[in-house]
Amino acid sequence: MITAADNYKKAILILSGGMDSATLLYHLLDLKIHPICVSFNYGQRHKKELVCAEKLAEVNKLHWELIDLSQLRHLLKGSSQTDDSVPVPVGQYDAENMKLTVVPNRNMIMLSIAMGIAIANDITQVFYGAHAGDHTIYPDCRPEFIEKLNEVAYICYWKQVQVVAPFSLMTKGEICTQGIEMKVPYELTWTCYTESEKPCGICGSCNERISAFEFAHAKDPLEYLGGVAHG
Amino acid sequence: MITAADNYKKAILILSGGMDSATLLYHLLDLKIHPICVSFNYGQRHKKELVCAEKLAEVNKLHWELIDLSQLRHLLKGSSQTDDSVPVPVGQYDAENMKLTVVPNRNMIMLSIAMGIAIANDITQVFYGAHAGDHTIYPDCRPEFIEKLNEVAYICYWKQVQVVAPFSLMTKGEICTQGIEMKVPYELTWTCYTESEKPCGICGSCNERISAFEFAHAKDPLEYLGGVAHG
Repeated sequence: MITAADNYKKAILILSGGMDSATLLYHLLDLKIHPICVSFNYGQRHKKELVCAEKLAEVNKLHWELIDLSQLRHLLKGSSQTDDSVPVPVGQYDAENMKLTVVPNRNMIMLSIAMGIAIANDITQVFYGAHAGDHTIYPDCRPEFIEKLNEVAYICYWKQVQVVAPFSLMTKGEICTQGIEMKVPYELTWTCYTESEKPCGICGSCNERISAFEFAHAKDPLEYLGGVAHG
Repeated sequence: MITAADNYKKAILILSGGMDSATLLYHLLDLKIHPICVSFNYGQRHKKELVCAEKLAEVNKLHWELIDLSQLRHLLKGSSQTDDSVPVPVGQYDAENMKLTVVPNRNMIMLSIAMGIAIANDITQVFYGAHAGDHTIYPDCRPEFIEKLNEVAYICYWKQVQVVAPFSLMTKGEICTQGIEMKVPYELTWTCYTESEKPCGICGSCNERISAFEFAHAKDPLEYLGGVAHG
């Protein structure tokens, strides 16, 4: 239950447990915004990110809500993230086959629920960590999606609510650079699209994380399968 | 599981179990569209509408999905539909106190999920039964909401999907008139906002239904509390 005591914080953060939303969390904390963190189980293979999200909220003493949409797994089929018959693509993140990882309308579903929670709790801002590297793969991370979604947010209720994506024009490398400066505990984040105990290091998502740490001239605190360290 | 055999029907219908979406179902059947029906448990008091939705799908041999969002009940608080501390308002449907029945962002949440299901199943149209009488009470039934939502629908994925609300400029009386002509089995619909065994006949929603049958010069097949018949 969200209590009135949480309201003054005036923000909802969609916290996936990945690098981008974790960095966004520390960005908000820097701005003295203590968001209510909302995570979603939409049947993704990589449930480890949810464990990370919970931990990130816990270490920062933030209210955390896990919304269970796992029932949608078989209805939003066709993505490697939710459909066991679709293998996780390996290779470069910007390759055509990475489109197999798109869960149809996932962001709009998550943002709609977060907007509803915001309105019901007198909160006006919903933050999410879409970034520029996502644009070619995830249609629902593009600035034009965020802009149009905000036009709906403006009229979906008698009170207005706003969706804010401060990283939407930044690359993952730039986000990581900012996060390293803010001492984001990246050991509490999960990026790999597989279910392995350690990140695989070869899926598109791992490749993108590895490149981001290289860009930031920083060492990734996670150890990859095969004991390889990156950064 | 939605199978390929369902795809040719090329429509999703948000079927609440109320009069409007039931009439929309028969309108689609008249057009030879056999929609996949999707209903939502968002923690509403009046669960009877879901029993009606299931029955309407069953008698028409349609695929029916019930999406369980009851977890959102305590997060989307403040509406009489989901919050036990807010009494169901009685009286006229267009009165200011009917705004207590608004569940924040409910339609956008339901439509986003229905859009995701449509995209994942190669379906291009999502139908819902918003009508003109709702406009002053439910911001997410207004034509401008539907228009803006469609602008998001247009870019939320690499394939396009469309939200269609054919009754958005019709009154409930006009919808009922059309439904009576199409022989919609209104005994399989539920409108009352309370949990009573029979409709209360005094809540705003019952009042609106009673007026619609009066407008259509038809008899409501439901019997109201106290044995009163209407129409």
